[in-house]
Amino acid sequence: MSQGGWVAVAGLGPGSAALITPEVTAALAGATDVVGYVPYVARVAPRAGLTLHPSDNRAELDRARQALDLARAGGRVVVVSSGDPGVFAMASALFEVLEAEPADRRGPEIRVLPGITAMLAAAARAGAPLGHDFCAINLSDNLKPWGLIERRLRLAVQADFAMAFYNPRSATRPDGFARTLAVLKDACGDARPVIFARNVSLPDETIRVVPLTDTLPEMADMRTVVIVGSSQTRVIVRDGTPLVYTPRSVPP
Amino acid sequence: MSQGGWVAVAGLGPGSAALITPEVTAALAGATDVVGYVPYVARVAPRAGLTLHPSDNRAELDRARQALDLARAGGRVVVVSSGDPGVFAMASALFEVLEAEPADRRGPEIRVLPGITAMLAAAARAGAPLGHDFCAINLSDNLKPWGLIERRLRLAVQADFAMAFYNPRSATRPDGFARTLAVLKDACGDARPVIFARNVSLPDETIRVVPLTDTLPEMADMRTVVIVGSSQTRVIVRDGTPLVYTPRSVPP
Repeated sequence: MSQGGWVAVAGLGPGSAALITPEVTAALAGATDVVGYVPYVARVAPRAGLTLHPSDNRAELDRARQALDLARAGGRVVVVSSGDPGVFAMASALFEVLEAEPADRRGPEIRVLPGITAMLAAAARAGAPLGHDFCAINLSDNLKPWGLIERRLRLAVQADFAMAFYNPRSATRPDGFARTLAVLKDACGDARPVIFARNVSLPDETIRVVPLTDTLPEMADMRTVVIVGSSQTRVIVRDGTPLVYTPRSVPP
Repeated sequence: MSQGGWVAVAGLGPGSAALITPEVTAALAGATDVVGYVPYVARVAPRAGLTLHPSDNRAELDRARQALDLARAGGRVVVVSSGDPGVFAMASALFEVLEAEPADRRGPEIRVLPGITAMLAAAARAGAPLGHDFCAINLSDNLKPWGLIERRLRLAVQADFAMAFYNPRSATRPDGFARTLAVLKDACGDARPVIFARNVSLPDETIRVVPLTDTLPEMADMRTVVIVGSSQTRVIVRDGTPLVYTPRSVPP
């Protein structure tokens, strides 16, 4: 709090500068320090008076502590996340650190600045697959047991939610997404559309629409968001990539 | 398609101009026509060469037809939605109309331009309540039976999702939100935090955090997004509104 320091946890959106809100741009323009995972900090233009503090993946709690310490010393600190900082990103990590501190250390001003999260950017490119009730699940089992993921998948299918999956598959977790697809094929029992959206909004973006019955684990990696339709989701065939949408209504 | 007409279904975010993406601003700058519900069209500045076409609520399909017709006549048409157009908004309505047309009428170029959806703006103001797996449910039973809403609520509690509710309560549907709260009190059986976020990002924004056991139907209206924590969601008491967040991890 001393000298007016603050922390803003800001979402840079999925990749394109055209998807960064003016609010985030203004926070970066007023910052003294930018803290974040290497590739996200690399999206911020260097300038005089701004110190960049890139750090490795999985260092979320250390990064949160660093940001709070810089703000307590008077820094105007932007913690950058991809997408939206409140969706499987840095905001929760910052609050985990804050809550563990003594009450008199919870002082710096903290703002969370929303961004375009990956599932909504991907949905927009594919049509409107999340146009009815839906859920968002992080498929990484680094921070929760696989059994909980499988339970959520089966309940989400019972609820007939469309589903968006973050972090579907990584080099260190090659098997979880194969298990996810097996659970879905079993629970859904149909050929509903699945969208594999990779590097959304970047020049090498790819959008694939594949019937669930034809999906393969290799269709996803860590740069992919996967959206699975509900039983009501429809495909409109046109030139190019088909349009996928979930109608607003469900008949009685 | 004639004369290069197009339709862009664009999200204006929750209200503040600081939350409109540059992509949407650029689409509006290049448009000949803006189509949408009266209060959303009112957020677009008039200028020479731009025709505004405000229309009433619940006229979604007529509005979609109008936008497609204008584009077929060569118009560069922006359909404006609040929040994100793909979340309980105009994108699905447009694709419903498009799908019902003959294949040779599906021509105009259509883009969906994502925006900051209400639940993510509200979550950011409250902390990070959607920092772990979550679902989004439209509580209006205009377009689906109440029984389906109740079923989804109960399954979402079983899955231990945090939940975001759109359109919780209106003058024509005064009872549904009371039933929603009764279902949640029964299914959750705890005092988890509930966030009532009204007019997020506008000058008269209010954010209330209330234990589920103390919630009342009158705390929400159509300008409110409601977020209900999971069983893991935590409250950090500080000066002013408490911070609410859901930790990233669930212990085995």
